[in-house]
Amino acid sequence: MELWYTEKQTENYGITAKIAKTLHKETSEFQEIDMIETLQWGRMLVLDGMVMTTIKDEFVYHEMISHIALHTHPNPKKVLVVGGGDGGAIREIIKHPSVEKAVLAEIDGRVIEVSKQYLPEIACALGDPRVDVQVIDGIKHIHENKNTYDVILVDSTEPVGPAVGLFARDFYQGIYEALKEDGIFVAQTESPFLNGDLIRRVYQDISTIYPIARLYTASIPTYPSGLWTFTLGSKKYDPLEVDEAQLKDFETKYYSPRIHKSVFQLPKFVENLLKG
Amino acid sequence: MELWYTEKQTENYGITAKIAKTLHKETSEFQEIDMIETLQWGRMLVLDGMVMTTIKDEFVYHEMISHIALHTHPNPKKVLVVGGGDGGAIREIIKHPSVEKAVLAEIDGRVIEVSKQYLPEIACALGDPRVDVQVIDGIKHIHENKNTYDVILVDSTEPVGPAVGLFARDFYQGIYEALKEDGIFVAQTESPFLNGDLIRRVYQDISTIYPIARLYTASIPTYPSGLWTFTLGSKKYDPLEVDEAQLKDFETKYYSPRIHKSVFQLPKFVENLLKG
Repeated sequence: MELWYTEKQTENYGITAKIAKTLHKETSEFQEIDMIETLQWGRMLVLDGMVMTTIKDEFVYHEMISHIALHTHPNPKKVLVVGGGDGGAIREIIKHPSVEKAVLAEIDGRVIEVSKQYLPEIACALGDPRVDVQVIDGIKHIHENKNTYDVILVDSTEPVGPAVGLFARDFYQGIYEALKEDGIFVAQTESPFLNGDLIRRVYQDISTIYPIARLYTASIPTYPSGLWTFTLGSKKYDPLEVDEAQLKDFETKYYSPRIHKSVFQLPKFVENLLKG
Repeated sequence: MELWYTEKQTENYGITAKIAKTLHKETSEFQEIDMIETLQWGRMLVLDGMVMTTIKDEFVYHEMISHIALHTHPNPKKVLVVGGGDGGAIREIIKHPSVEKAVLAEIDGRVIEVSKQYLPEIACALGDPRVDVQVIDGIKHIHENKNTYDVILVDSTEPVGPAVGLFARDFYQGIYEALKEDGIFVAQTESPFLNGDLIRRVYQDISTIYPIARLYTASIPTYPSGLWTFTLGSKKYDPLEVDEAQLKDFETKYYSPRIHKSVFQLPKFVENLLKG
């Protein structure tokens, strides 16, 4: 018998992957959590029926949500990840020697535990002494920690269910207040082929709050359409004014200082989304 | 009843699209030709079970196979497309006012006819007076036309079946001879996530034949992994030395002079493929 997992990424389109076995299945307080072993992409974490990450392509998302902001800030010491319970963003953050403390604010502790058990390659840094794992509502955390962080990364699920509040203007304003006076934040902001309205709205919200707003892309095979966006808001430092020659080129598979600026050069239809 | 078309892009992975109806189905001398109406991507041309193009995302492939080379050559007059029976590359080529003649060498005349009937938005330029449509083996055509073309585009199907010869070193050598002394060629060369060995081999072949070899990428949702590569071989002009400010920004949806150089900035794992 062949087992295939199909994610309907939209009502009319999806991806399908042959699976070797189901490793784990539970319903937590917040969502359905599934871990499956696929033949194409290795182990795959699925939340509420949506692919969150896979062993073989996770490097793209985790490197690209992290290193652009961390290489734009000249001296990031204190970093917050909202969501990101699999630990992939944390793993990338602590590659930066300046980082003294990385806080993970994940609302669903079961995602953290399941990731530690089944995705050790991704969750491997959660026990690092610089890392503070908190099972907490990220929105509450930012409101209780004003003027605290150099960099904040919003590593959320899709804008449905528990993550809706993570795409709201109030949340971006709260992040602004939780950042220090020269802080930077990055949020994952979905596909320009499928979520153009969301991208436009979020970009406009961030543009009204932060003096510098930028959008960049990365190619993630198991995410809807394969092209993904990240939106960056910055109080002081512009990622396009970084001196690439000064950036350290440590161990990565997707990010490199050579693409630090080029990922902001957008296909014309994506540029046009941002014009509102 | 819901009908879904699933393309297994690899043995273990694929895409699936809900279809409104099947518009056409035939077996030509060379391949199976299917035209279906999908709800997500509009009309979709499928050859031997592989998605070739769709109404909603075709702009990426057709603009990106064409404009990089045509904007790198300072005065392209005579252009050849090998394959490309849907006419999309031809439509883009004749946007360049310098082009006096665009030859389409498509081996399967039925692809041309089916595209004219069901994909008029894509095939619309095949009747242009500057366009010479030839139902002919592209390999034969290049051997019979030495020192003829300014730009040659290899718009092939996947490297199986009728297109195997279009990924061979001998073919790239033949193209070299069919180009004028300052000619440029571009071939579609598959996904870096799924076809790394092919990309490495083709890039090395092209590097040994052409003084300038370059690889660039574009995001195509309905192609395997969503990230696609194109390999460029040039006798004289380097796409990275073009003055972007001098390029005309005509009507496109993906290509713009602002991304002309940035698409050559590769994710690190793709850079590493090229190191051999």
